[in-house]
Amino acid sequence: MAEPPAQEPLVKEIPPKGADLSAWYTAVCIKAELVSYAPVRGCVVLRPYGFGMWENLQRELDMRFKDTGHENAYFPLLIPESLLVREAEHVEGFAPEVAWVTQGGQEKLEERLAIRPTSEVIIGVMYAKWIQSHRDLPVLINQWCNVVRWEKATRPFLRTMEFLWQEGHTAHATAEEARAETEQMLEVYRDFAENVAAIPVYAGRKSASERFPGALETFSIEALMPDGKALQSGTSHDLGQNFSRAYEITFSDADQQLKHVYTTSWGISWRMLGAVIMVHGDDRGLRIPPKLAPLEAVIVPIVKGEERAPLEKARELGKTLRAAGFRVRVDDRDRSPGFKYSDWEMRGVPVRIEIGPRDLEAGSVSLVRRDKQKGEEGSRVPVTFEALSATLREQLTSIQSSLFAQAKTFLQSHTFAPTDRATFLEECKNRAGMVDIPWCSRPQCEAGVKDQTSATTRVMRELQQPGALCVACGEPAVVNAYFAQSY
Amino acid sequence: MAEPPAQEPLVKEIPPKGADLSAWYTAVCIKAELVSYAPVRGCVVLRPYGFGMWENLQRELDMRFKDTGHENAYFPLLIPESLLVREAEHVEGFAPEVAWVTQGGQEKLEERLAIRPTSEVIIGVMYAKWIQSHRDLPVLINQWCNVVRWEKATRPFLRTMEFLWQEGHTAHATAEEARAETEQMLEVYRDFAENVAAIPVYAGRKSASERFPGALETFSIEALMPDGKALQSGTSHDLGQNFSRAYEITFSDADQQLKHVYTTSWGISWRMLGAVIMVHGDDRGLRIPPKLAPLEAVIVPIVKGEERAPLEKARELGKTLRAAGFRVRVDDRDRSPGFKYSDWEMRGVPVRIEIGPRDLEAGSVSLVRRDKQKGEEGSRVPVTFEALSATLREQLTSIQSSLFAQAKTFLQSHTFAPTDRATFLEECKNRAGMVDIPWCSRPQCEAGVKDQTSATTRVMRELQQPGALCVACGEPAVVNAYFAQSY
Repeated sequence: MAEPPAQEPLVKEIPPKGADLSAWYTAVCIKAELVSYAPVRGCVVLRPYGFGMWENLQRELDMRFKDTGHENAYFPLLIPESLLVREAEHVEGFAPEVAWVTQGGQEKLEERLAIRPTSEVIIGVMYAKWIQSHRDLPVLINQWCNVVRWEKATRPFLRTMEFLWQEGHTAHATAEEARAETEQMLEVYRDFAENVAAIPVYAGRKSASERFPGALETFSIEALMPDGKALQSGTSHDLGQNFSRAYEITFSDADQQLKHVYTTSWGISWRMLGAVIMVHGDDRGLRIPPKLAPLEAVIVPIVKGEERAPLEKARELGKTLRAAGFRVRVDDRDRSPGFKYSDWEMRGVPVRIEIGPRDLEAGSVSLVRRDKQKGEEGSRVPVTFEALSATLREQLTSIQSSLFAQAKTFLQSHTFAPTDRATFLEECKNRAGMVDIPWCSRPQCEAGVKDQTSATTRVMRELQQPGALCVACGEPAVVNAYFAQSY
Repeated sequence: MAEPPAQEPLVKEIPPKGADLSAWYTAVCIKAELVSYAPVRGCVVLRPYGFGMWENLQRELDMRFKDTGHENAYFPLLIPESLLVREAEHVEGFAPEVAWVTQGGQEKLEERLAIRPTSEVIIGVMYAKWIQSHRDLPVLINQWCNVVRWEKATRPFLRTMEFLWQEGHTAHATAEEARAETEQMLEVYRDFAENVAAIPVYAGRKSASERFPGALETFSIEALMPDGKALQSGTSHDLGQNFSRAYEITFSDADQQLKHVYTTSWGISWRMLGAVIMVHGDDRGLRIPPKLAPLEAVIVPIVKGEERAPLEKARELGKTLRAAGFRVRVDDRDRSPGFKYSDWEMRGVPVRIEIGPRDLEAGSVSLVRRDKQKGEEGSRVPVTFEALSATLREQLTSIQSSLFAQAKTFLQSHTFAPTDRATFLEECKNRAGMVDIPWCSRPQCEAGVKDQTSATTRVMRELQQPGALCVACGEPAVVNAYFAQSY
């Protein structure tokens, strides 16, 4: 039973998403109070509402890490320069991005300390101490932490100097086990992206030019943004023996031989939240998948004058729903219902529960879904007080699926399989979406495509038509690859 | 049904706790794999077993923060020097401990960036942006993060250059609300220390010399270690308007006046884990209170030769207990039962569940409590398979209480109330424990006691006998104060 919008001004407009994704994105991040710019170059503050999404992401991923046998630990923030430089490709890749500590209190340091841009090095040094025997393997550790990479630009979640992430680091006795771990964690990420973040992804192996510095192979999940650019949303690296040789991580095997371990690393950062915002949002603001939503539902009492009954009932229902395990808030602010509707829509709360005097008489509430358009079938559902908890659970499940389905439709309708070079280059250049071709896998070919279109390979998979030629250059194809411009 | 210890060497000895607490402490921290020294001065790695304790601490505290209306957020690690220097006492207190970033990638910075030693400054700057009106108050935010304070010495948990902690930061419209918040969080800390960490504490106000730099008043909880030294385990600061004036955090009040907010901050670090280790441990190693224990119970199957039945039953019971919500591990390592008993005793797992062939026939297990001495009544309890889950829950509750009771007895028997100056000074000097006297509260008096005995005031409370004279100096007393040497 919605009231007509009140006279006071509604939440300030955000620009239409379709017209300028970048302006829309920044406006939504700030207005929904996900983040705030900090007075430090390249840094943002993750505000409570944004942190609520991060906590849900953490809980869901952490559970999956533990279910696959991993434990959490914490390694130091600062890494002596002499340790950082031992793996040549790794240091070359990260040196331009390192923030250096040179002074401690009044003391000028003899050796500079790097703020971790990632922790392969410090963890490798510790694994060299901890691992002696094949009985110590595998080592399966994850850490949730902050890292710093010196950046010029700032875009909330997508590109910041400091960011929050998790980084898993494992050590194994054999190359096969390390590869299986790398693939297992890629699958954990795919499952999380699709079933929690409601974002369909292409998962696969990266080309040589897109590999993590120091890795044997990098795998990633790639999501498609509404502007046709891809966002790399999680990576899993098979590091082979590159780091165990550089940091002397050895073990005596059952056959008494001293061998180097095989290591992996894998990470997801708060960048994933950027993908959630861009993929699901609409002109009214955020649409957060229920599993990541800080609030699954908000209850808006429709109060006129001195009438307090709807507010009291709202509080009672709020209490009941919280006791049933829902994340729910009663909006008892001194504002009009219209203002509150717009405000919570902008913040992307999946369900709004309205309760007015007439609802109270009827013993029911109206449940309004954020994923549907106004007036769309099923966008507004009347529910009796008794059925509220069960119906809310069903509706949240339905919203989670519906957001995924919408995103999946978008990805499918923006995945192309051109068969001629001209169409391929045009689609890459115009950001048509994910452009899937049989590919030769030659770095020169990829560099040529990049020069002409700004697109690069995102992930590769098995060649779908044996004998096919590379659509980009005409040489024999060895894999299928998705090309796209990327964030 | 314990086997006699096997022939293979047991877990390497740790020195007796009573003889040299410091040597015992370090040995236990390392051997139980709580921490490892890192190749960075002053830093340790929190290993998975230690991180398991930290995760339980986080969960228990975080729940209490949320129950009292706080939300989590994340603020930047790096703070520009020009911002840090605005609150004079604060910068003076922290300047000697700051690690400075002076270089980013190839670029030499125009302004140095401090790695946060604490976040009053950066959070104050953000609150100044976010808070406009009395409607925006109170702001109740907490953050879990790492901080760096340049330290020469390293003692795991107690003194490290980088450490993990939580820091709450709140802003209020009135001095009364800020004081109430400060006291509420002190009470949350006391409750956590006593009911989760099983450590009895004295809670109260700090003297002027022991205040947080920039605070109006500091409150703390103080625990007594076995060597008679106190450990400050959590602090709660009423910052008054000191930071809101320095960082211009103002709001327009209901009366239309522009006013400065009143702020608080409060923190507990991984130092609390150091207190847990020292207070509860014994000559056999750690004794972790069940609520903080990474493993509440370990199941040791007693397997001889080819007999597999106890191992299979152990796995089945492990599965049942995990499903019932217990943190439990089945130790199926290829080691003797005797080795496993010593190993898990050293790691402080509250309950050991033994299952051998004869137990299997009898349909029961033996449940062995870590908090009791061998042979002590109730140290070994036979339990049927059916009763295991219920009995384990009871026993864990009982162990939690028993560890607290033991620590409480120690604190009470090491709290003294001398009435003459000579006894007071002697008790302070000899680390007798907490020395409680009517005190004048004069800084000169406290400095004199410190010079002669190394002891300082820990916390103060209301004067217990009105009209009493200061036992330290003979001037009129205004409070009662606990004196002790401290970590």
